[in-house]
Amino acid sequence: MSGGTTRRSLDVARHRREDAARRECEMTTSPPPLSKREIDGFRQSLSNWGRWGDRDQLGTLNHITADKRIASARLVRSGRTVGCARSLATQAAADNPQPAVHLMVATASEGWAGDYFALATHGFATSHIDALCHIFHEGTLYNGYPIERVTAHGALELGIQELRHGIVSRGILLDIPRARRVDFLEPGEPIFIADLERAESDGSVRVEPGDVVMLRTGRWRAREVRGPRPAGEGLAGLDASCLPWLHQRGVAALGCDGVSDVLPSRVADELLPIHSVAIVTMGLHLLDNLQLDDLAVACLEEGRIEFHVAIAPLILQHGTASPANPIALF
Amino acid sequence: MSGGTTRRSLDVARHRREDAARRECEMTTSPPPLSKREIDGFRQSLSNWGRWGDRDQLGTLNHITADKRIASARLVRSGRTVGCARSLATQAAADNPQPAVHLMVATASEGWAGDYFALATHGFATSHIDALCHIFHEGTLYNGYPIERVTAHGALELGIQELRHGIVSRGILLDIPRARRVDFLEPGEPIFIADLERAESDGSVRVEPGDVVMLRTGRWRAREVRGPRPAGEGLAGLDASCLPWLHQRGVAALGCDGVSDVLPSRVADELLPIHSVAIVTMGLHLLDNLQLDDLAVACLEEGRIEFHVAIAPLILQHGTASPANPIALF
Amino acid sequence: MSGGTTRRSLDVARHRREDAARRECEMTTSPPPLSKREIDGFRQSLSNWGRWGDRDQLGTLNHITADKRIASARLVRSGRTVGCARSLATQAAADNPQPAVHLMVATASEGWAGDYFALATHGFATSHIDALCHIFHEGTLYNGYPIERVTAHGALELGIQELRHGIVSRGILLDIPRARRVDFLEPGEPIFIADLERAESDGSVRVEPGDVVMLRTGRWRAREVRGPRPAGEGLAGLDASCLPWLHQRGVAALGCDGVSDVLPSRVADELLPIHSVAIVTMGLHLLDNLQLDDLAVACLEEGRIEFHVAIAPLILQHGTASPANPIALF
Amino acid sequence: MSGGTTRRSLDVARHRREDAARRECEMTTSPPPLSKREIDGFRQSLSNWGRWGDRDQLGTLNHITADKRIASARLVRSGRTVGCARSLATQAAADNPQPAVHLMVATASEGWAGDYFALATHGFATSHIDALCHIFHEGTLYNGYPIERVTAHGALELGIQELRHGIVSRGILLDIPRARRVDFLEPGEPIFIADLERAESDGSVRVEPGDVVMLRTGRWRAREVRGPRPAGEGLAGLDASCLPWLHQRGVAALGCDGVSDVLPSRVADELLPIHSVAIVTMGLHLLDNLQLDDLAVACLEEGRIEFHVAIAPLILQHGTASPANPIALF
Repeated sequence: MSGGTTRRSLDVARHRREDAARRECEMTTSPPPLSKREIDGFRQSLSNWGRWGDRDQLGTLNHITADKRIASARLVRSGRTVGCARSLATQAAADNPQPAVHLMVATASEGWAGDYFALATHGFATSHIDALCHIFHEGTLYNGYPIERVTAHGALELGIQELRHGIVSRGILLDIPRARRVDFLEPGEPIFIADLERAESDGSVRVEPGDVVMLRTGRWRAREVRGPRPAGEGLAGLDASCLPWLHQRGVAALGCDGVSDVLPSRVADELLPIHSVAIVTMGLHLLDNLQLDDLAVACLEEGRIEFHVAIAPLILQHGTASPANPIALF
Repeated sequence: MSGGTTRRSLDVARHRREDAARRECEMTTSPPPLSKREIDGFRQSLSNWGRWGDRDQLGTLNHITADKRIASARLVRSGRTVGCARSLATQAAADNPQPAVHLMVATASEGWAGDYFALATHGFATSHIDALCHIFHEGTLYNGYPIERVTAHGALELGIQELRHGIVSRGILLDIPRARRVDFLEPGEPIFIADLERAESDGSVRVEPGDVVMLRTGRWRAREVRGPRPAGEGLAGLDASCLPWLHQRGVAALGCDGVSDVLPSRVADELLPIHSVAIVTMGLHLLDNLQLDDLAVACLEEGRIEFHVAIAPLILQHGTASPANPIALF
Repeated sequence: MSGGTTRRSLDVARHRREDAARRECEMTTSPPPLSKREIDGFRQSLSNWGRWGDRDQLGTLNHITADKRIASARLVRSGRTVGCARSLATQAAADNPQPAVHLMVATASEGWAGDYFALATHGFATSHIDALCHIFHEGTLYNGYPIERVTAHGALELGIQELRHGIVSRGILLDIPRARRVDFLEPGEPIFIADLERAESDGSVRVEPGDVVMLRTGRWRAREVRGPRPAGEGLAGLDASCLPWLHQRGVAALGCDGVSDVLPSRVADELLPIHSVAIVTMGLHLLDNLQLDDLAVACLEEGRIEFHVAIAPLILQHGTASPANPIALF
Repeated sequence: MSGGTTRRSLDVARHRREDAARRECEMTTSPPPLSKREIDGFRQSLSNWGRWGDRDQLGTLNHITADKRIASARLVRSGRTVGCARSLATQAAADNPQPAVHLMVATASEGWAGDYFALATHGFATSHIDALCHIFHEGTLYNGYPIERVTAHGALELGIQELRHGIVSRGILLDIPRARRVDFLEPGEPIFIADLERAESDGSVRVEPGDVVMLRTGRWRAREVRGPRPAGEGLAGLDASCLPWLHQRGVAALGCDGVSDVLPSRVADELLPIHSVAIVTMGLHLLDNLQLDDLAVACLEEGRIEFHVAIAPLILQHGTASPANPIALF
């Protein structure tokens, strides 16, 4: 129940930004976009198919060993908890065309209070974790399962129920606006390996196998300032050139206040290369549309960017995702 | 991703039960049922109204201090995780007349897999945590908020969004069938303070302020054997005489594989005295319909009944509950 | 299955309009807005409470006698049918913030095709008929039923199930843009008794007791040209001064491509005077958000504005409305 | 708003039944079950593919000409209306495992009454009309459309929106329990051509091209007496041998208080031969789970089994069905 500090603390970061020129500079020296062919190359070079067995359903969560969990618990020093979810998005908006429904089933007239909710978990509004069945490539899912296993009755392989015992590990916040000394990334602004490593370096932490990386782009602050608009028109996120880094570091799960992918993707004929390669090739679970502003405040105040984290998906048999509220514990 | 041991380990417990005569004996020496007047007395003697301020919305979760969370993290020794939720209950049954809906929004024909789900969270089938707005008594909610704050647009006080930063603390499993050397409690069988204390004693642990108590009745094994039936016809759970114990021990949250209340309640004119006094009078959050069989196996195998636990509710503004999958970490 | 003529026929009407000046003239001679006090006067002078008995649940549908239905069938001469509903509004828009959900429950993978839909019937997007429980005034529903009869489990009086045998009568299209020689009314443009009577006169028909009046404002053509926007910002519809006319003529049910009320209402402190007086005082069923463009084409081509009409609500016990597709038969 | 006579009139029919022996006799002389091969023969001999053009989406509704509609209006003599739908089935039961959801979006606390409902239209509980996309045979839909046109986003051909202008024609009630002088058919009891023709003969009417046939099995009275049970265990309905009769007579649409098919089907390896051949081969729309008891009473009291009927589906783009309340007008 902690974490009550207001967002004003983030203003500290705001005052640190030196100038727009710096950003200008960075943009002009950005790596060039990858080609579809390079992405296809990743489908070979970054593949985890078979790495944890022919019937593996967990992908890079296999990086989280019991020892990793034990070590993550050792990070708890202040006892502060921080939730990383947005409120369920019940209001239609340019970035939420199919809002969640929330209705009451009982109120004063029945003598108790009960409710009902309904939502399509994916999209650009609900904080959620993707199951590995969420994305296909050329008729195939992670680890080679065929697309036919995805039916109108759900995904018969790689469903979200595989995560019934939750994800517990070390979490690391990579706060890119902070690393770049800006308030937020602009819609469509790509993030490169250099950004990830600067954020690590600023936090004196190195991402290691089994870590849950939380990638902050400042999306919700951008939305406040720039207004809501269709996600396809622009979201800050990872450039596809970061994929090998995710693989080499052994990231277990990747959360983002956007959808991890920069949109548009900068790669011709690949809408979502991060989703496609992370999920299908690497078996890397993604968490989309998180709310990482409270976490950013906590990291500033706690003076560290690593923490214990627990993710507790709902168990939806054959489901493609679960709404999720990752809980960071400092 | 651990906890994969089959339920066969529970057979250990089964073989320990000595005889049906023992149960018979216990039943005949049960404390007599409380009267409605005694329950009304609890509404005074066990009240936490104003204890944490006039505007408090958290109730007994205030028992969970930062130090309590830090200490709970110190319990992590094996790194084993155990989820405590059932699969979302999409099948109608005698104990689930309004099943959850789970549908796909995209499959092979759309090139990705997405889904939708809808549910009325309360009832007797979904693992969930009640918000403190869930129950009223004589026109009033916990801490004196008036019933008029519960509208058809949700509960304007005590909504589930108050738990946005999650619940992290020490968890303790009180496995009553194990304490009684039986396979499961029969539908309608009450649990008394003596049972709770025997379970503590068997586990060499004492419930203390801020603990999250998980109360196992063996409901799902009873259901396998006895078949599903309407919950109102009989669920094992706490006798109302346990309420002072919950108060004195400073339980922060109480989870159960049933609904904590024994049904029928044994108290004339009080359908759900545990719900009513725990939620309205004490501000004690209840978690209903959990799946505690995996946790029971883990406790047996780990040789202890205490663990670190994280509960991560979805943030549903003005909501009366959230589906939940508490994650125990050993 | 008729009615396939394209909307181009409406262009006939377009070419008839003489000039904008005419409209200008009409606007400047509009009756002044009514006051809230005058509306309150209607609550006395136009009341049908008790007219059809203390327990009446049908209101002005009592005007539809068996003879009226028989006569309506005599109007059938060409055999042409025309539906008056929009497609269920599954896309979010400025005038549809809570879109209907439409999902498949089975497709090729299951060997049959089945679906699911969900919607909040009221609002400004779905063609529907209001039940008489939909609107209250000072704690009371039509015919004096108390507001307490509307619970979180539905309306225990005046629910839509009262219409289980459907509405069959004479229908009359009052096409106001046609009467005014314009393409469509502007958002927020009020309609007065003079307009209604000009439309009658143009069609050589007089609205009589038991008729179902279909009021066309050209809303969907306005939406094409002006774009979608929140309904509260402006919808063409009846000025409150038309209420006595509806009463005197004995209109049985009133449909509109808007919501019958002009928005804003022109009456200070009365958001929806037509809804309030028609439903609560008169017991007059309203149909909102109809699609009357096909009907307008048919009337032009058939050379008449009267027809047989059948409205077949779904039977939703204690429901406040039903989606509806009135079928006109010429 | 008529049709209020109680079901007691049906007792007239009950007293007419002579004896159980008669039924026994009929059953023993039943035609033998058809083979799958004979059903496959129907797929050739009864085919309407191409009959109304390569792009036809309406099937046997093409039998309803404008003249047919005009003639149907001539049948109106008493002005009585009768709805043919059940209340939406919001209660789980053995024959309704996925009940409709009905919730309020606004009540007294919001100053108006509004609601929400959600349902999977098919199944054995909701009165509905099937779209022609509902059933496939060997990868193909009616008129040769390929199964690939049925996606997770709906059916791109033969969707229910094709019926946007409604169905209006002559309706004929074939009340088989009345024809057999029994109260209701037993679950699983088949209906043969002789039954259909006896019902015609008793009513002095002959089914002709374009008629909407309403087939009453007495299902809801059987349910009252025998209790609800899974539909697959037994529903009265047409034996597959009736298919040629439906074709020869030119039935435009077929409604039933069951699902038209007798269940089990009596045909080895064909679960639903009526559904399969009627929908896929003939393009004949079926209406399932109607409530025909009120209609049976009306026919008795009106002394005739033919009437004007209007069916007004909701327009659900790419939908596989619509809930429907056919309105008979005498």
